[in-house]
Amino acid sequence: MQRITSTEHTYVKQLVKLQKSARFRKKSGVTILDGIHLVQSYLSAYHAPSGLKSLVISESGQKNKEITVIQEACSRHHETQFYFVTDSLFQKISSVKTPTGILACVTIPETDYQPILRDNYSGFCILLETIQDPGNLGTIIRCAAAADIADIFLSQDCVDAWSPKVLRAAMGAHFFLNIYADCNLVEVANCIKGQVLATSPHASKTLYQMNLNNAVTFIFGNEGTGLSNEILQAADEIISIPMPGKTESLNAAAAAAICLFEKVRQDQQAYHPES
Amino acid sequence: MQRITSTEHTYVKQLVKLQKSARFRKKSGVTILDGIHLVQSYLSAYHAPSGLKSLVISESGQKNKEITVIQEACSRHHETQFYFVTDSLFQKISSVKTPTGILACVTIPETDYQPILRDNYSGFCILLETIQDPGNLGTIIRCAAAADIADIFLSQDCVDAWSPKVLRAAMGAHFFLNIYADCNLVEVANCIKGQVLATSPHASKTLYQMNLNNAVTFIFGNEGTGLSNEILQAADEIISIPMPGKTESLNAAAAAAICLFEKVRQDQQAYHPES
Repeated sequence: MQRITSTEHTYVKQLVKLQKSARFRKKSGVTILDGIHLVQSYLSAYHAPSGLKSLVISESGQKNKEITVIQEACSRHHETQFYFVTDSLFQKISSVKTPTGILACVTIPETDYQPILRDNYSGFCILLETIQDPGNLGTIIRCAAAADIADIFLSQDCVDAWSPKVLRAAMGAHFFLNIYADCNLVEVANCIKGQVLATSPHASKTLYQMNLNNAVTFIFGNEGTGLSNEILQAADEIISIPMPGKTESLNAAAAAAICLFEKVRQDQQAYHPES
Repeated sequence: MQRITSTEHTYVKQLVKLQKSARFRKKSGVTILDGIHLVQSYLSAYHAPSGLKSLVISESGQKNKEITVIQEACSRHHETQFYFVTDSLFQKISSVKTPTGILACVTIPETDYQPILRDNYSGFCILLETIQDPGNLGTIIRCAAAADIADIFLSQDCVDAWSPKVLRAAMGAHFFLNIYADCNLVEVANCIKGQVLATSPHASKTLYQMNLNNAVTFIFGNEGTGLSNEILQAADEIISIPMPGKTESLNAAAAAAICLFEKVRQDQQAYHPES
């Protein structure tokens, strides 16, 4: 247990760098969960979290009951380091305007997408190309976890999925599915056994015309430019979401929500027609 | 046509205040559309925009072809003032990190919800209670316009719908529907003739069990706390979105997208069964 009061402390500098730099997070394989809810989600997902490197708690955080519970639960893990910092120092480390007083350093799960592709992959998954907005990526991950998606494949130029902003927007959903970063999406699409559907405003078929009861992969693209020609060609079908209104565009995360839950709906109808 | 170079200029101060203060926007009845796309959307929605008070263009903006086209189109409106500012001054006025070089001051449409309620209201509309995140509100407005919603009713404690952040997230959708701010949502819900559906994770019926072909009103609530008891009681039915995954929560905008487009789907099936 260590008390830190100076912004010049090596560990404080490291935490600030982890908050800000995607490159440093990738290099060190570590990220920060900022806030009570995220840390709780992490602990409920991994019962014996060997990836929990440290817990940093602020002075006022120490008086918070939920934080005390987390602290007690984690004190059993011998690998976890505990740091206590002043409120003003915590404010400097945190990426949140109104910090809750706790943050955790955790290892980013290592994922390798090559092995699962060799296996004639036929899960319910999504491919994301060049998603740039952290809020959008986080919302899509949260939505995917709620829809029971197992795997998310990200192209190399997506925003860092393990950035504090994406983690906050996903509200802990990261811990309930596999996130494969830096993928060659065309290669992934070609290896997938199930139906691969790309969304585009310019499509002759609509989402609602598709039978989604078997294995389905959805591909969603960049907020501004949509999907590349390469990935459109790798899809089995290009579909659109019908928009009866006077505007014909949707936020990337809204489009993903609509597609994923249309599969949820069709599965419910097929397997639980009464519900 | 006026060239401004000083941050001390009265009009510059007014613009900065419009960007930052919801109270000032409400008091003056004016807001700012920041960026080419928003100004274009506004002009395509209102053919003779008497509400266009001014156009502010940066030095580099004057070299942009799209901005020149906008400028020419607006020069016909005698009420519109034109201001040219240096790039550095524009950067100070703009709320965008990388400004496109044009912004417009427009009057916020005056809306009064009392008259439409007296008329046995039966449109396709949504009620939003205490939506706090500008990105969420903007995404919901964009989604609503795409789904052909006519009216959005906001509770008093929602974030300002005409703030620059909400306008940006909605991508011009504001101009294609009516936004009623500061509403008494219980009163609105009680006056609505059609089916009023509130969404809540704790509901016995699901979205997919509902027949949405007739007039439907959806109510969506605060990102953290959900809907108040008062508004839940004013609804005809409380419904949930089934979530088969390991997490059971959705972003407010994602939930709205799923509900609105379930109505779009059901309407398509009823009226165009082949499409």
